[in-house]
Amino acid sequence: MDNFKDQLEIYRNAVNDALDKAIIDNGEEAVSAMRYSIFAGGKRIRGALVLAFCALFGGKTEAALPFACAIEMIHTYSLIYDDLPCMDNDTLRRGKPTNHVVFGESTALMAGAGLYARAFEVITENSVLMDHQKLEGISVLLSASGLKGIITGQMLDLKNRPGLSENEVMRIHALKTGAMIEASAILGCIAANAGKAEKEKARKYAENIGLAFQIKDDILDVEGSVEELGKTIGKDKAEMKTTFVDILGIEKSQNQVDALSAAAKKEVADIEGSGFLCALSDYLAGRRS
Amino acid sequence: MDNFKDQLEIYRNAVNDALDKAIIDNGEEAVSAMRYSIFAGGKRIRGALVLAFCALFGGKTEAALPFACAIEMIHTYSLIYDDLPCMDNDTLRRGKPTNHVVFGESTALMAGAGLYARAFEVITENSVLMDHQKLEGISVLLSASGLKGIITGQMLDLKNRPGLSENEVMRIHALKTGAMIEASAILGCIAANAGKAEKEKARKYAENIGLAFQIKDDILDVEGSVEELGKTIGKDKAEMKTTFVDILGIEKSQNQVDALSAAAKKEVADIEGSGFLCALSDYLAGRRS
Repeated sequence: MDNFKDQLEIYRNAVNDALDKAIIDNGEEAVSAMRYSIFAGGKRIRGALVLAFCALFGGKTEAALPFACAIEMIHTYSLIYDDLPCMDNDTLRRGKPTNHVVFGESTALMAGAGLYARAFEVITENSVLMDHQKLEGISVLLSASGLKGIITGQMLDLKNRPGLSENEVMRIHALKTGAMIEASAILGCIAANAGKAEKEKARKYAENIGLAFQIKDDILDVEGSVEELGKTIGKDKAEMKTTFVDILGIEKSQNQVDALSAAAKKEVADIEGSGFLCALSDYLAGRRS
Repeated sequence: MDNFKDQLEIYRNAVNDALDKAIIDNGEEAVSAMRYSIFAGGKRIRGALVLAFCALFGGKTEAALPFACAIEMIHTYSLIYDDLPCMDNDTLRRGKPTNHVVFGESTALMAGAGLYARAFEVITENSVLMDHQKLEGISVLLSASGLKGIITGQMLDLKNRPGLSENEVMRIHALKTGAMIEASAILGCIAANAGKAEKEKARKYAENIGLAFQIKDDILDVEGSVEELGKTIGKDKAEMKTTFVDILGIEKSQNQVDALSAAAKKEVADIEGSGFLCALSDYLAGRRS
C-alpha cells in the first residue's frame, strides 16, 4: 500500500508537471481562472488511470501524458460548469471557493470552455502520438464528454429527484462520471497501442471502479466531514436527489462498493504489473475523502 | 448577382441538410435546444466559405461538408454563450428568443457544450476525410475557438468600454469573429488538399471580409432596423462598447468596408472560378442585415 501511494504520487506529479507546461500563465484572466481550477488539488485519479493502463500494456509515459492532461482538463471543465449558479450553484470545491465565486460567472464560463478546447489541443499538438492514436483518443474523449456522456448525465442529474429507481440513478452516474473514468482507462490502452481484448478489460475495470467511486461518494456525502471532503456535505439530501444510500442504505451501499472493487480487480489481476490498479481499486473503496 | 444568390442558397441547403443529419432529434432536451439554435435561420456564411474554397481549389463537397457543419456548430455554440445572462444577456437573436430564454440557462449551457463537442465528432466520424485532414481541421477549429480566438475575444469584449483605440477594437473582433471566418476559408483548403500558397490567399481573403463584416455590423447596429436585423439594435451604444462607427464615423466606416472588400477580392480574383467569392465579398459589404 505504501508502494501504491508512492506510485500514485509519481503519477500525480507527472500529470501536474505536464499540465503546468500545457497551460502557460500569460497573465490573461481566462488563463488564470483555468489554472486556478486545474491546480485546485484534484486527486488525478483519471490521469493516473491513463498512465497506469499505458504502463500495464507496455506503453511509454510520454505517449500517455497528453491524454492524461486532456482527461484532467475535461474533468475540471465539467466541475466548473457543474458548480455554476444555473447548475448546482456550489461555492466550495476541493476545499476552495469555486471558480465563479473567485473569477465571476462570465470568466468561469470562458475558463471552462478554454480548458475543454485546450484538452484537445494538447493531443493535436503532441509529437509522440501517431495520427490514428490522436484521432481515436479524441473520439473517446468526445463520446465521454458529449451527448453520450457528461452532457446527458448533467441534464438527467438536474432532474434527479426523490424516488428514482436504482437503474435510473445508475444511468445518471454512468453518463455523468462513469464515461470519463472508462475513457481514462481506454486512453491508456490507446497510448500503448493495446488490442481490443485489452481495451475491453480496461473498460470493464473502469466501469466497476467508476460505479464504486460514485456509490462511495454518496456514502461520504452522508458520513464524511467538510474537513475531510473539502466540499459541502449533506448536499444530495438538501438538493433532494436520490442517492444510492437512499435506495440501498449505508451498509448495502458499502457492500456494493466492495463487490464492485473486487470485480474490477478480477479484470486485471492476472496481468503482470497490475498491482497498482488492484491497490487503486481497494483505495477508492476504502477512501475517506 | 442572381447567380451568386442561387449558389449561396445551394451551399446553405447543403449545409443545413448535413446539419440535420448530424444532430438527430432524439427527444432529449439538450438535443432540442441544440437544434433550436442551429436551425434558427443563420446565413451560413461560414459554411458557404468552407464549401466555396474547397470548390475553388478542386476539392469535393463531401469532403468539405463535415468541416462546414463543424464551423457552423461552433459558431452557434459561441452565440448561445454570448447571449447568456452572465455574458451579453441578450433575449433576441435572428428574430427569435435566445436559447436560454426558451430552454433555461442550464439547458442552454449544455446545448452549447453539446454543439461544441458534436462539431469535432462530425469530423472524427467522417469516412471521406483522411486522418491528416481531420487532425489539421480540428487544430484549426481549436485555435479559432480557444484562447487564440473566441475565448480571449469574448473576455476582451466583456471589457469593451468607450474610448478604446481602433487597434484595440480591431483586436477584439479579430479574435472574437475574425479567427472563425479565417478558419472557414482554411478548412475549405484542407478539404481540397490545397497547398500553402492557396491557404495563405484564402486566409487573407477571409481576414479582409471578416473585418469588413464586423465594421458593417457596427454600421447596421446604428442604421439598421429590428425587422431587418432580427436582433436588438442600438445595443453597442446601450452597452457602452466602442465600435468602429464611434472611431471612424459612418461614412469612413463604410469606405473601410468597401476597401476591405476590394482587398479580399484581389486575393482570389485571378483564380478561375472565384466569381462566387468575389460576389460574396460585395454582398457582405452591401448587406442590410
